[in-house]
Amino acid sequence: MNLLETINDPADVRQLTRPQLKQLADELRAFVLESVSATGGHLSSNLGTVELTIALHNVFNTPEDRIIWDVGHQTYPHKILTGRRDQMHSLRQIDGISGFPRRDESPYDTFGTAHSSTSISAALGMALAAKTKGEDRHAIAVIGDGAMTAGMAFEAMNNAGIHDDINLLVVLNDNDMSISPPVGALNRYLARLMSGQFYAAAKNVGKTVLPAPMRELAKRFEEHAKGMIVPATMFEEFGFNYIGPIDGHDLDSLIPTLQNLKNLKGPQFLHVVTRKGQGYKLAEADPVLYHGPGKFDPAEGIKPSSAKKVTYTSVFGDWLCDMAAADKRLVGITPAMREGSGMVEFERRFPDRYYDVGIAEQHAVTFAAGMACEGLKPVVAIYSTFLQRGYDQLIHDVALQNLDVTFALDRSGLVGADGATHAGNYDIAYLRCIPNMVVMAASDENECRQMLSTGFQYQGPAAVRYPRGGGIGAKVSTDLATIPLGTGEIKREGKGIAILAFGTMVAPSLSAAEELDATVANMRFVKPLDVELLKRLAATHDALVTVEEGSIMGGAGAAVAEAMAAAGIVKPLLNLGLPDQFIDHGDAGKLLALCGLDAAGIAASIRKRFGKDQPRLVVNQ
Amino acid sequence: MNLLETINDPADVRQLTRPQLKQLADELRAFVLESVSATGGHLSSNLGTVELTIALHNVFNTPEDRIIWDVGHQTYPHKILTGRRDQMHSLRQIDGISGFPRRDESPYDTFGTAHSSTSISAALGMALAAKTKGEDRHAIAVIGDGAMTAGMAFEAMNNAGIHDDINLLVVLNDNDMSISPPVGALNRYLARLMSGQFYAAAKNVGKTVLPAPMRELAKRFEEHAKGMIVPATMFEEFGFNYIGPIDGHDLDSLIPTLQNLKNLKGPQFLHVVTRKGQGYKLAEADPVLYHGPGKFDPAEGIKPSSAKKVTYTSVFGDWLCDMAAADKRLVGITPAMREGSGMVEFERRFPDRYYDVGIAEQHAVTFAAGMACEGLKPVVAIYSTFLQRGYDQLIHDVALQNLDVTFALDRSGLVGADGATHAGNYDIAYLRCIPNMVVMAASDENECRQMLSTGFQYQGPAAVRYPRGGGIGAKVSTDLATIPLGTGEIKREGKGIAILAFGTMVAPSLSAAEELDATVANMRFVKPLDVELLKRLAATHDALVTVEEGSIMGGAGAAVAEAMAAAGIVKPLLNLGLPDQFIDHGDAGKLLALCGLDAAGIAASIRKRFGKDQPRLVVNQ
Repeated sequence: MNLLETINDPADVRQLTRPQLKQLADELRAFVLESVSATGGHLSSNLGTVELTIALHNVFNTPEDRIIWDVGHQTYPHKILTGRRDQMHSLRQIDGISGFPRRDESPYDTFGTAHSSTSISAALGMALAAKTKGEDRHAIAVIGDGAMTAGMAFEAMNNAGIHDDINLLVVLNDNDMSISPPVGALNRYLARLMSGQFYAAAKNVGKTVLPAPMRELAKRFEEHAKGMIVPATMFEEFGFNYIGPIDGHDLDSLIPTLQNLKNLKGPQFLHVVTRKGQGYKLAEADPVLYHGPGKFDPAEGIKPSSAKKVTYTSVFGDWLCDMAAADKRLVGITPAMREGSGMVEFERRFPDRYYDVGIAEQHAVTFAAGMACEGLKPVVAIYSTFLQRGYDQLIHDVALQNLDVTFALDRSGLVGADGATHAGNYDIAYLRCIPNMVVMAASDENECRQMLSTGFQYQGPAAVRYPRGGGIGAKVSTDLATIPLGTGEIKREGKGIAILAFGTMVAPSLSAAEELDATVANMRFVKPLDVELLKRLAATHDALVTVEEGSIMGGAGAAVAEAMAAAGIVKPLLNLGLPDQFIDHGDAGKLLALCGLDAAGIAASIRKRFGKDQPRLVVNQ
Repeated sequence: MNLLETINDPADVRQLTRPQLKQLADELRAFVLESVSATGGHLSSNLGTVELTIALHNVFNTPEDRIIWDVGHQTYPHKILTGRRDQMHSLRQIDGISGFPRRDESPYDTFGTAHSSTSISAALGMALAAKTKGEDRHAIAVIGDGAMTAGMAFEAMNNAGIHDDINLLVVLNDNDMSISPPVGALNRYLARLMSGQFYAAAKNVGKTVLPAPMRELAKRFEEHAKGMIVPATMFEEFGFNYIGPIDGHDLDSLIPTLQNLKNLKGPQFLHVVTRKGQGYKLAEADPVLYHGPGKFDPAEGIKPSSAKKVTYTSVFGDWLCDMAAADKRLVGITPAMREGSGMVEFERRFPDRYYDVGIAEQHAVTFAAGMACEGLKPVVAIYSTFLQRGYDQLIHDVALQNLDVTFALDRSGLVGADGATHAGNYDIAYLRCIPNMVVMAASDENECRQMLSTGFQYQGPAAVRYPRGGGIGAKVSTDLATIPLGTGEIKREGKGIAILAFGTMVAPSLSAAEELDATVANMRFVKPLDVELLKRLAATHDALVTVEEGSIMGGAGAAVAEAMAAAGIVKPLLNLGLPDQFIDHGDAGKLLALCGLDAAGIAASIRKRFGKDQPRLVVNQ
C-alpha cells in the first residue's frame, strides 16, 4: 500500500504518472476489499468503480468540478481518495462515516445520494448554476445502467439536452446490473450498443477531437462505407454527444477520453463498461451475493449460512408463495428489488406472475392499478422509503379508484446502517391521510403474515408495514388466516396507564409495562383505528400513551389524538415515537434506544411524564 | 345534429359509413364547442381529439377493448359518444359528470386519469392481465407529447418494450402542446420526426401489413435507396413497432392504420399529429387561452377581461418578479405550468432565471436541490397535488440536505371543478412529517406574499400553501416584508372557546366567532407550530378548536393535538377540516360548505360539540 498511503487528497492523484495510477488502482482495490470485508457494506459496486474514480479525480479539478455519484453506494474508492481512508473502519456505524456521499462529510461529496437516479437532475442544476454565476466548472453525474431506467433520469436527460452551453458530463457506468439483474428495453438497447462495438472506442475518441463539420462528414462516410445504418444513439437524440462504449477498467482509455470530453461544451455522455466485483473472483462470479455483504474473510469468501434465518422479508416471501398457490389472481410486482424483497422463490415458482418492472416505483404502482382493474390482485413489494417515489400514483391511481392492491412495506422504521436516506419513518403519516387506505403495522413475524393475508383479502388498497431484519422470533403459522379489519387486542391488563402500541413497539412496550403495571394494547391497525378499543381504554385508565416506530408528526399517535378529539375524550396523552429529525446510520437497535424506543426508554418517558404510580397528579393543567 | 343524436353507444359508431363518420366528426366538434362554451371546461384539447375518438371507437370493440386517455381532459368527445351526450350540461358541477374519465361513471371509462402520464402503465397492466387471463382484448393508451416527457411514461415504455406478446397500442397524440408549450429534447426529437415526413404515412401503412422478414428487407432497401440513414426511431429502440406520423384529423388515414395495427401482436406505437383547437379558428390561434376557459359566446370568443383579477396565483407571480429584482440568486422553476402558476411575466422579465423543465416533477425538485447546492435560491412553483409526484425528492434531496428551496403550493385545499384528482388536501399531512420543513398556510393575499418572502429568506426548505382562485380581497403590499418564523397571531379576543385557524379558514372562523364570542388565532405556521401561543390559548380558554382546509387525518389539527400532548395540555379539542374521503368536483365554495367549512358550518360544529355558552359542561369524559 505504499502509494495509497501517500494520497490524502485528489490533488495527489493528479501528480501521479500513468504507471503509478495503475499501481494505485491495484492498491485501492485491495484496500476496498480488506476494508469492506472487515466492516460489511457494499462491495461489488465499489470494486467496479476503482479505475473510474481514479480517472475522474485525475482528469477533473475536484472538488471545484462536481462529481455526483448516483445511488452513492459505489463511493468507497472516492471516500478513500478524498481524505477518509483512515475512517473507513467506522463505515456505516454510529458516529462513523456514511455508506453514501454526504455534503456535511466532505467538500468532495457535492450531493448526497442513496435513492437512485437523482444524479443527472442535480448535476444539471449545478451546471446551470455555474453558467448563471459565470463559473467555469464541470458537473459530472456518474449513473449506473439500472438507475438509468428510472423516470427521473429520463426527465433530467430530456431537460438537459436542450442546453447546449453547459459543462455537463453524464458517465453511464454500464455493468449490466442493478441490485437485481436489470430488466427492460433500455438494457436490451445498451446490450445492442455494446455488441461487438469495443472497436468504437478509438473511433469515438477521434470523434471528440474533430471539429463538428468534419465529424459530420466522417460520420456520413462511415455509414456509406459500411453499407448499413449506424443510427444515432438514443442519447444523441436527446441532444447529448455520445462517446463509447469504452472499457471502464482501462485507465489508458478512460483518462484520454475524459480529457477530450473536458474540452467540449454542451451535454456530454460517456458510456463506460465495468464489471461489478472486478478483481475479486468470488464477487465477479456472484455480484448479487457480494452486493452488500456483512463481514467475511476475503480469502474464504462468504460462507453459506447453515440455518435459514427468519426475517420479515422471508416471512413475506413465504407468504407470497403460499397465497399465490391459493389464489391464482395474485401477481407480484417489484421495482428491481427481487432479492431485497424476498421474491426469489416466488419468481422461481410463479414466473408468469412475477413482474420486475425495473427501478420504476411510479410505474410499479400504476401498473398494479391497471392489473387490479382487470380483476387481478397485485401485491407490490416495496420498501417504505421507496414508496415515497410512487406517492402520487398511490393516491391518484390506486386509492382514489379504491383498487385492490396490497403494499408490502419492507424496511419500515429505522433501517440501521443505510441511515437517513433509507429511513422508513414517514409511511404512517403519508399513508393514513389518504382516503380508502388500510394501514397495518406488524408486531411480530406471525402477525405480519396474518396482516398480509388481511390486506390481500381486503378489497381495496392496503399496506402492511414491517421492519428490516428479524423480529421477536414468533412462530409463523402456515395458514392464511386474517385479522378482523380495524381491531386491536389487549396484550396485557394493567391499571392507571394504557399503552397503545403499534407494530414493533408492542414488544418493548410489554416489557416497559411490567414495572409500571400498565395495560398494553397491540393496536395492529393504524387505519382504520380501533376506536372502540380506544374508548374502552380511555374510560378505564388515567392516561394514554402511544408508541410507534415512526415519525410522531402525523403518525399513529396523532391518529389516536385525532380520534380522542373526535370522540370528545379529554385525557392525558403521551406520544412516543421517532423525533422530528433525520436519524443517521448505525445499529438500528442502538438508534432506537437513543430515541427512547426500547423498553427502558419507554418506561422512563412514561415515568417522567406521569410519575410511576399516580399519573393524574403530575399532569400539567 | 341529426347523426349525433342517433349515437347512444360506440356500437352505433361502428355501423356508420366513412362519409357518415366524417359528418359525425363535424357534428361532434360543433357539439363540443357549444357544450363547453356553455359550461366552461377544457376546449382546445377536445376539439383536437374528435376524429381520433371516432376512429378508436370505430375500429376497436369498446368497452371490451380498453381505451385509457392520458390526462383525460380530452375525453369530452368520448363521453358524448358513450352515452353521456345529454349529461354534458352538468359537466364539472356538483352531482354532474366529471371533466375526466371515471370508472364509476361509465364502463367506457376504463381508468380514471387527470394527472398526466399514467396511461401507458395502466394500459400495460391491463394488457398483461388480459394475457394472464387468456382474454383477447386490446389496451390502448392515448397520450400527448407533453405527457410523454414525464418519467413515468418512460418507465412504462421501458417495461412494455420487453413484452412481445401483448395487445398494447400507444397512440401518441402529438399536438406540440402541453398546457404550456412543451420543452425538452423529446419534443425537439418529435419535431425532427415530423419534418417533411408526412409521406411516411403511406410507407408505414404498407409496413404494417408486410410480414416481418419482408419488412426488414424493405427497410434495408429503402435505406440504401435513399443513401442516407433512416434511423430506427427511439420508440423502436424501446421495442415498439413505430408507425407514423399520420394526420390525426384525417379519418381516411386513421381508420385503416388502426385497423392494421389491431392485427399486430406486441407493443405498437402510433404517432398521430393533431392540432389543439382544430376547427375553431380562435382556439387554433391561441390554444393556451382556450385550454380551459370559463363560459363564453362561441361567436365572439373569449373577451379580454377589463380589470386584472387578483388571484393567489397573480399574487405569487407579482411577488416572484419583485423578489427576483431584489435578489439575483432567485431562480424560478415550473414543471410545465407557466400559465397556471402565474409565471408568464417572470419569464418575460427574467428569461435566464426561468426554468420550465417539462412535466417532470421529480426532476424539478432535485434540479432545484442541485441549484441550491451552488448558492442559488430556487423557487419551485407547483400545485399541491403535483408535489405528490416529487415527494421522495423533497424528502431525500431537499429536506435531508436542508437545502434552501422555496415551494409555492398553488391549488392547496379543494380545487372545485377539477375534483378529487386535483385536490390539494394532503400537503399539510405529507409535508409536516418531514424534518427541516417549514410549512405555512396563507389566510389572505397579502399574507401569502409575506409568507413567500418568509420562506424565501428562511435558509432551508419551506412551503407556502395557498388556494385556487381569489381570496378575501386583502390589499397586497409591494414590499418584501417577512413574518417571524413560527409565530401566529390573535385575530379576535373572545372567551370560552379558542379557534386555531389555518390559512383560508381564518376568515370563516372569524365570522363564526362573532356569534360564539370565541377567540380566533391565525396560526400561520403549520410547522413550526406556535406552541407558546397554543399554551396561552389553552390556559385562558375552556376548549380549543382547530380549523383547516386540508385532511383532518395528519393535518394541522393533528399538529395541535400532538403539541398539546407534548406540553401536557389536557383540554377539550375539536378538529375541523376535510373529511377522510375523496371529494368530487363542483363549486369549491359549495363543497366547503358541504364539509362544514364555511362560517355557518364551523359555528354549528362548535355549538354541537360544546354548546353555545358553556363548553365545559357537555364535554364527554
